Amino acid sequence: DWRSRGPGHIVRYIILKWTLCFLVGVLSGGVGFFNNLAVENIAGVKFVITSNMMLARKFGWAFGVFAGTNFVLLMFASMITTFISPAAAGSGIPEVKAYLNGVDAPDIFSLKTFFVKVRFSEVSDVDVSSTQQVVGCIAAVSSSLYVGKAGPMIHTSACIASILGQGGSRKYKLTCKWLRYFKNDRDRRDLVTCGSGAGVAAAFRAPVGGVLFALECVSSWWRSALLWRAFFTTAVVAVILRALIDICNSGKCGLFGKGGLIMFDVTSANVTYHLIDLPPVLVLGVIGGILGSLYNFLLEKVLRVYTLINEKGHVYKLLLAASVSIFTSCCLFGLPWLASCKRCPAGLSEACPSIGRSGNFKKFQCAPDHYNDLASLFFNTNDDAIRNLYSAGTDNVFQKSSVFLFFIASYFLGIISYGLAVPSGLFVPVILTGATYGRLVGMLMGSHSTLNHGLFAVLGSASLLGGSMRMTVSVCVIILELTNNLLLLPLVMLVLLISKTVADVFNADVYDMLVKLKGLPYLEAHAEPYMRQLTVGDVVGGPLQIFNGVEKVSNIVHVLKTTGHHGFPVVDEPPFSSSPVLFGLILRAHLLVLLKKKTFLHARTLASIDVSEQFSAEDFAKRGSGKHENIEGIDLTAEEMDMYVDLHPYTNTSPYTVVETMSLAKALILFREVGLRHLLVIPKSSSRAPVVGILTRHDFMPEHILGTHPFLLQSRWK
Amino acid sequence: DWRSRGPGHIVRYIILKWTLCFLVGVLSGGVGFFNNLAVENIAGVKFVITSNMMLARKFGWAFGVFAGTNFVLLMFASMITTFISPAAAGSGIPEVKAYLNGVDAPDIFSLKTFFVKVRFSEVSDVDVSSTQQVVGCIAAVSSSLYVGKAGPMIHTSACIASILGQGGSRKYKLTCKWLRYFKNDRDRRDLVTCGSGAGVAAAFRAPVGGVLFALECVSSWWRSALLWRAFFTTAVVAVILRALIDICNSGKCGLFGKGGLIMFDVTSANVTYHLIDLPPVLVLGVIGGILGSLYNFLLEKVLRVYTLINEKGHVYKLLLAASVSIFTSCCLFGLPWLASCKRCPAGLSEACPSIGRSGNFKKFQCAPDHYNDLASLFFNTNDDAIRNLYSAGTDNVFQKSSVFLFFIASYFLGIISYGLAVPSGLFVPVILTGATYGRLVGMLMGSHSTLNHGLFAVLGSASLLGGSMRMTVSVCVIILELTNNLLLLPLVMLVLLISKTVADVFNADVYDMLVKLKGLPYLEAHAEPYMRQLTVGDVVGGPLQIFNGVEKVSNIVHVLKTTGHHGFPVVDEPPFSSSPVLFGLILRAHLLVLLKKKTFLHARTLASIDVSEQFSAEDFAKRGSGKHENIEGIDLTAEEMDMYVDLHPYTNTSPYTVVETMSLAKALILFREVGLRHLLVIPKSSSRAPVVGILTRHDFMPEHILGTHPFLLQSRWK
Repeated sequence: DWRSRGPGHIVRYIILKWTLCFLVGVLSGGVGFFNNLAVENIAGVKFVITSNMMLARKFGWAFGVFAGTNFVLLMFASMITTFISPAAAGSGIPEVKAYLNGVDAPDIFSLKTFFVKVRFSEVSDVDVSSTQQVVGCIAAVSSSLYVGKAGPMIHTSACIASILGQGGSRKYKLTCKWLRYFKNDRDRRDLVTCGSGAGVAAAFRAPVGGVLFALECVSSWWRSALLWRAFFTTAVVAVILRALIDICNSGKCGLFGKGGLIMFDVTSANVTYHLIDLPPVLVLGVIGGILGSLYNFLLEKVLRVYTLINEKGHVYKLLLAASVSIFTSCCLFGLPWLASCKRCPAGLSEACPSIGRSGNFKKFQCAPDHYNDLASLFFNTNDDAIRNLYSAGTDNVFQKSSVFLFFIASYFLGIISYGLAVPSGLFVPVILTGATYGRLVGMLMGSHSTLNHGLFAVLGSASLLGGSMRMTVSVCVIILELTNNLLLLPLVMLVLLISKTVADVFNADVYDMLVKLKGLPYLEAHAEPYMRQLTVGDVVGGPLQIFNGVEKVSNIVHVLKTTGHHGFPVVDEPPFSSSPVLFGLILRAHLLVLLKKKTFLHARTLASIDVSEQFSAEDFAKRGSGKHENIEGIDLTAEEMDMYVDLHPYTNTSPYTVVETMSLAKALILFREVGLRHLLVIPKSSSRAPVVGILTRHDFMPEHILGTHPFLLQSRWK
Repeated sequence: DWRSRGPGHIVRYIILKWTLCFLVGVLSGGVGFFNNLAVENIAGVKFVITSNMMLARKFGWAFGVFAGTNFVLLMFASMITTFISPAAAGSGIPEVKAYLNGVDAPDIFSLKTFFVKVRFSEVSDVDVSSTQQVVGCIAAVSSSLYVGKAGPMIHTSACIASILGQGGSRKYKLTCKWLRYFKNDRDRRDLVTCGSGAGVAAAFRAPVGGVLFALECVSSWWRSALLWRAFFTTAVVAVILRALIDICNSGKCGLFGKGGLIMFDVTSANVTYHLIDLPPVLVLGVIGGILGSLYNFLLEKVLRVYTLINEKGHVYKLLLAASVSIFTSCCLFGLPWLASCKRCPAGLSEACPSIGRSGNFKKFQCAPDHYNDLASLFFNTNDDAIRNLYSAGTDNVFQKSSVFLFFIASYFLGIISYGLAVPSGLFVPVILTGATYGRLVGMLMGSHSTLNHGLFAVLGSASLLGGSMRMTVSVCVIILELTNNLLLLPLVMLVLLISKTVADVFNADVYDMLVKLKGLPYLEAHAEPYMRQLTVGDVVGGPLQIFNGVEKVSNIVHVLKTTGHHGFPVVDEPPFSSSPVLFGLILRAHLLVLLKKKTFLHARTLASIDVSEQFSAEDFAKRGSGKHENIEGIDLTAEEMDMYVDLHPYTNTSPYTVVETMSLAKALILFREVGLRHLLVIPKSSSRAPVVGILTRHDFMPEHILGTHPFLLQSRWK
């Protein structure tokens, strides 16, 4: 009701909406670029120094410097994460996903899920957290750990969007009056959706992929208008990145060369494939699906163990991170020694052994004119390793044994690296492992296929992504944008579909698994079969607190103090109507504002004065999350406690309702599709009280339903 | 209720769902390929013959053959459309869009909109119509008319999906028992959504673009699962097309050479652009937006005039088509004469003048070693003209005056060609006109920009598409897939966003306009501001027909005969409950089935026998649209009329309800998001009848609301 503003306000609102999207795009692009620049430079310097030592055959020194740098970097990232902002650990995508599903509902706090205190909930910490996440992510990725920057990047962008949407952080006085229009959930959620799209766009330089990712994987609601705004945001990111890279191309960015932002040009422009190539691709997809679901399975097990260790205290967290770092360094430095040196092929356009950081022909320990193919995979940043694997015309560069060894190592290093207390993404490790797997399949196929091995690597990445993340369209577009080759499209699509189908047989996708592991009450889009057998009346429970249209202050205070509900039905009783009538729904937050303002009445009458003059829209605007008033903070005198307050003007008179005999499955559809927090249940028969109960998100959680109706357990889906 | 089947059924259902998607993909791909093959061959032969005559300087003969062929082809298409399946006229996208918005609701038939009798409503005609649409579309496109094949292609694919979803056409005994599972709206609508995506994929060879098109432009509801299925369908299309083209590459397809399916390789692989190129691109976007909205404006005017002419009778329809055909032929053949011949540039890799059908250097009337640049645009299929315009490194091939002339001509020919009684799409003409416009801008920019003119043409297409169709993400992806160059992405995005924003200031997008022009009751996603001022009770009107739980047969027959409603509330009254209680909602279709089965009761008692034994799920399954039972078709004796029928087992006991004081805007959100047909309105006070009214789609139409509440007109949006 307080949102009906004049046309001037509407124009300002629209301009603001687009400006915020623009800002989110610019900042995400900037952060993404800075992130990459830093990683390329730090990791680059590290590899250049160690490579030079290797050339000078000081192997011990090289290992010392390599492992030492990795250790220091990882400890730095881990310490930041552990001591300053624990929320920055992990990928962040599950949190964003849960937030967009509506999980920031204040009643979540009453649950055991303290995990929800992540960045969105505590605005004051958000900006620290996101800054540290950037720093932490740079350090973690530079430390040669098998983690990616995509997840943290998405999370950081979502944080930027969230901060902007809340009008800045109040703690640091960074507020802006202009930004104060966004005091409702929907606008904030839209902005966070755009932000997550921008994050993908910034991480992979894939604007269309970013929009699709936000649509397919992250968001729970979607409108056509939002599609357009998300697209605008990612377009801004693309333009910003393009401009910054233009600047860097002139060589001002240190080691950030043409590598830089992930973008693997599969060099062979004319990819040709025919129907005979179909069987290998099918096999690739099937095994990729199995490997992907196994990845999820193992990851879950490892995460459970890590959670146990991490809960023991900060020291254990750091010890865990340290041991993984040392183990990773040993693997990366030690395993290449197992590969036999190969003689450089003649007639190359590239230098062999490679000079500088990238290239397929790392010299490592070999004699002159020889190269170590395994070192060019292990002893490199993840981005460069992927680029090496994707490159075409290199069918004879790698040996089967090297690729196999690298595949096994990266598969397991990726799994053990994720759960550490550092900002870490899953995307890049999975892409890398998948690329190795694909190349391995390509090698084993040998002459049975006309496809080159670089192409097999691309398809391998797709299959493992499909098997683990279970996204189809967005992963497909991201891969196409990464490789800049649209002719691959049908093959990539095919592989993704097969691997997703295969993997779906075994378990759920990795983000669902993470969301569940964190205990976030995520609302699924589909109703489970047993919900059809229940009516709404079956799950509504607990004592219902109802307020009268004009209610005594002491009553309100009592109810607010004794319950944790966030919405209360308001019912008009005989003095104000002939029979009890449901008037509407009032929110706890609004009641608190009322109590604070203390505009009470001395008798049980309707308020005569115009309330709209006493309250501005600002008073009822949704606070930044985590900034909730507390009933304990309001002092009321005994006299005031005896007074009355007219709730009518502050009540939402159009709450959504369902009849108590409505099937639970249908109520869930309403709840989820319309995006509700509270759903009033009204009785069927008119002879009873006008409201039977309130449904909230928790009433739809399988745990709750099956807890009250255990006999349904057998009919549960799967 | 009858949908709760065993696990075997569920597995069969899932397999069927995917099989149908697969079939839709295969058939769409096949039809799309056949369509292109036929167009390329028919138009190709036409151009080869006329070109040969031109070489022999028999200009009169050439014109005669050219205009004659065009005339015959167009008359053929027009006659098929007029006499056999009038529904096949036009693009078909508005109808698909309206169907997916839920417009096939039977109560639409009672409206004045006989247009709704389009292909979806009359299954029996669907397959004829779609066959003819293919044939008609081939003829129309081959006749050098300025119409595209994308629209009809999308419609055809949607038809294929619809036919498959209904289990074949009963009229032609092409039914299949296996396919009979899809007897509910949702599955059919999902399949049609996939079909429309497949249509785009088949028309442009753009699978990702197809999915996005279905998502952004066509569908009104969207689920993540559907995204995956649509993606699968378009992937199948892509694979099928790829395989068929593989076959054709060996030269077995006549004139269907490498041209064939739309796919314009912008040959310059390394597109470079910098920040200085931004201003020209911005200008291009702004003017493109203005031109696009002007296009829509003019198209609407022309369509209104055409509708008046077409309504006069078949002869007028044919005459209109004939005159446009002759006018088009005259333009295409006559205008190139205005261009001066240019000398062939030296050192070309191409032949000059071009040999065969395609190429930039048509000889036309010129002397040897000279070429007519205007003829290479006019005297060509639309696809080849676009390819010529998009090609890079041809900055000096075209003259400013030629391009300008072609731009004006194609802009207006496109507008006057759309409304004819032939299957016609809007996409290709808009792309062509936009490409010309872009090249013109590029030429006028001259040395102020480093972009090549082919790139300008691509951006011009984008800007005009953005200005006219107002799609962003899907058009962007389609253009990228057409040109196979991802580096264009940021520029294309930018242009699209600008042109859409500019054009949105002036008018609505072209499909909205067409939907409105056809009088389809399309339900918008957003609530208009005046809806906030109304409650549900304000718009519910008309006498409400209520049935008792056990109702007299004669009553039912009377109500069904006198009203056109399609849903009736069922209320239990005192004999069966203590006070009147709302039991649920029964559909007209189910009542008719009941009346036909004649399982009546002699007294006003509850039925004792188990009804589930008497009726199979098949009986209540949704009929193929247009196959509705009629109350007149059911004969009942006087004795039967006096009997009773127990409606309880056949009633939907969980209808969605709203309280009468609910704001209309919120009710609209519920109606639209959950995808309802009927919404029961229940009273606030418990002392009244248990149901106040039923809301249907029409109660949310602005015309209806503003008709009953004219004072709201002033506060209407815009």
